[in-house]
Amino acid sequence: MKGTVLHSPGDVRFETVDDPTIVAPTDAVIRIAATCVCGSDLWPYRGLQPIEGPTRMGHEYCGYVEEVGKSVTSIKPGQFVVGSFATSDNTCPHCNYGYQSSCTQREFISMAQSPVLRVPLADGTLVPTREVPSKESIPSLLTTSDVLGTGWFAADAANVKPGATVVVVGDGAVGLLGVMSAKHMGAERIIAMSRHEPRQKLAREFGATDIVTERGDDGVARILDMTDGVGADSVLECVGMQESMLQAIRATRRGGHVSFVGVPHGVALDGQELFFSHVHLHGGPAPVRRYLPDLIQLVLDGEIDPGKVFDLVLPLEQVAEGYRAMDERRAIKALLQP
Amino acid sequence: MKGTVLHSPGDVRFETVDDPTIVAPTDAVIRIAATCVCGSDLWPYRGLQPIEGPTRMGHEYCGYVEEVGKSVTSIKPGQFVVGSFATSDNTCPHCNYGYQSSCTQREFISMAQSPVLRVPLADGTLVPTREVPSKESIPSLLTTSDVLGTGWFAADAANVKPGATVVVVGDGAVGLLGVMSAKHMGAERIIAMSRHEPRQKLAREFGATDIVTERGDDGVARILDMTDGVGADSVLECVGMQESMLQAIRATRRGGHVSFVGVPHGVALDGQELFFSHVHLHGGPAPVRRYLPDLIQLVLDGEIDPGKVFDLVLPLEQVAEGYRAMDERRAIKALLQP
Repeated sequence: MKGTVLHSPGDVRFETVDDPTIVAPTDAVIRIAATCVCGSDLWPYRGLQPIEGPTRMGHEYCGYVEEVGKSVTSIKPGQFVVGSFATSDNTCPHCNYGYQSSCTQREFISMAQSPVLRVPLADGTLVPTREVPSKESIPSLLTTSDVLGTGWFAADAANVKPGATVVVVGDGAVGLLGVMSAKHMGAERIIAMSRHEPRQKLAREFGATDIVTERGDDGVARILDMTDGVGADSVLECVGMQESMLQAIRATRRGGHVSFVGVPHGVALDGQELFFSHVHLHGGPAPVRRYLPDLIQLVLDGEIDPGKVFDLVLPLEQVAEGYRAMDERRAIKALLQP
Repeated sequence: MKGTVLHSPGDVRFETVDDPTIVAPTDAVIRIAATCVCGSDLWPYRGLQPIEGPTRMGHEYCGYVEEVGKSVTSIKPGQFVVGSFATSDNTCPHCNYGYQSSCTQREFISMAQSPVLRVPLADGTLVPTREVPSKESIPSLLTTSDVLGTGWFAADAANVKPGATVVVVGDGAVGLLGVMSAKHMGAERIIAMSRHEPRQKLAREFGATDIVTERGDDGVARILDMTDGVGADSVLECVGMQESMLQAIRATRRGGHVSFVGVPHGVALDGQELFFSHVHLHGGPAPVRRYLPDLIQLVLDGEIDPGKVFDLVLPLEQVAEGYRAMDERRAIKALLQP
């Protein structure tokens, strides 16, 4: 088959790769219904994260089970499934505490921008739907695999509660779905920090009550100004850079909560600043598997429509254009159809 | 009067200073019943924190109200009071959220190693006892002013719950009282990291179930070994250095909680390590005022006896010996009697 391979920064190719097969008895092989390009794929695409030779890409996926290994018990061929970007046995202590993305057997999915995908630890990683869903629901179901699950974790880890004042730093798909998650959790005021008109529009559609276009110290000053000098209860850091982390911490009230859900690049936190900020800090790779059953249900019930983050739909073979469009911020997020 | 002044590293003098008086109408002046030397006093004493000229010392105190400013309403001359090392109006938004040590009007008490002390924001900072307490209870009441309040916050901020496995990094008075606090909050297993026999003994008396003498990576390996490779639920970092912070983070299970309550010195946290550690992190100057009423009650009810951390009692004029004894680790904590 053909799959997506990053050869060097900016050089994404859709080319012949090995066909996936069952390797371990706990594997499943699924035919992808839809996959997409993630904001985190742009780190190596932009040369900001080194790669060692040609690298298979893609970790967001949903699709139809084709084959399962002989020890897989809860997943059957023909089922429609969504899985996390991080595999998990869902039985180890970390999984039992709800941190499946730190499973002792964790692997990161990395070949999902392909028509067919091998998923290790199928029983603990994949969640099947009761029925094969409609085509219309597939984009939203796809988001539960990472970008919605991550935005949801961002809101949860930032302790968003009914009535809260929430700030979202970052207007990528994760940030936008962080807005949606905060809204769903009952936040009263949701301030999206964004300077891009189409993203501001979607943020408002998802529940943002205010938009702040300033960044860095100016952005912090605006948030303090809007909160009577106090700061926000919950701040979702959905970027992963030093400036955005500091912006998040400084926009939070004493005793408030900061979450961070994008792999930090070049971030070092000064102990004294963190100490006197008095914030709670929690983040990491989102334990999507914890949230998947509920998020899938919310989508199937029509309660949320996170698939709106896909403002570009391409045939999978045009994956390179998906990367380009996101890199140039012409698209928020590109959905790829095999 | 005479008071304690640090002139340069190692040079503590008890010498003539100005008599405290009411300056603002919200002030109180109290006659000190007992004060003490704090682990944090050792930073400048050891030259690890610069001072600009002769510096008045001391921030832990309890005593008898002598005089109050004309707008003080809840504190009266003759009362016995305990106050936090950080002043607070106890009415600003940060105070209302329980973070009085980040009060918008906060000042840090810094002249308490004296016979008489001016306390700003008396109504919001001081807590009176119903009756003048017995002499025997004064050491324990003194600890509520900082060292117990800080150990308590360490346990609270590390989310210690009934049945939890808790690790305490640091065997100073704060760490030891962190052990006591964790015990009081229902922790099942409390592992104190200590290599000093008298401190190990006190840790066990306060509720430690295990002692680990290894530090750094070896200490982390021991904790992981003792927790089936999982890590502890709650880790209290009561030192404030890079090695102890990393030790705390690495000894915590995924999704567990790390608190840090000593002002960090030379600490910088790598964003990626924090991200993949999946821990919750919370700390800062302990909001002692939040806990004072309850902690005073626990002491007066005889539920806890935190005054045991004082293994050296000196007349206030021998304060320099108190610093020396703690610096040389001959004493855990020195109580000073005016």
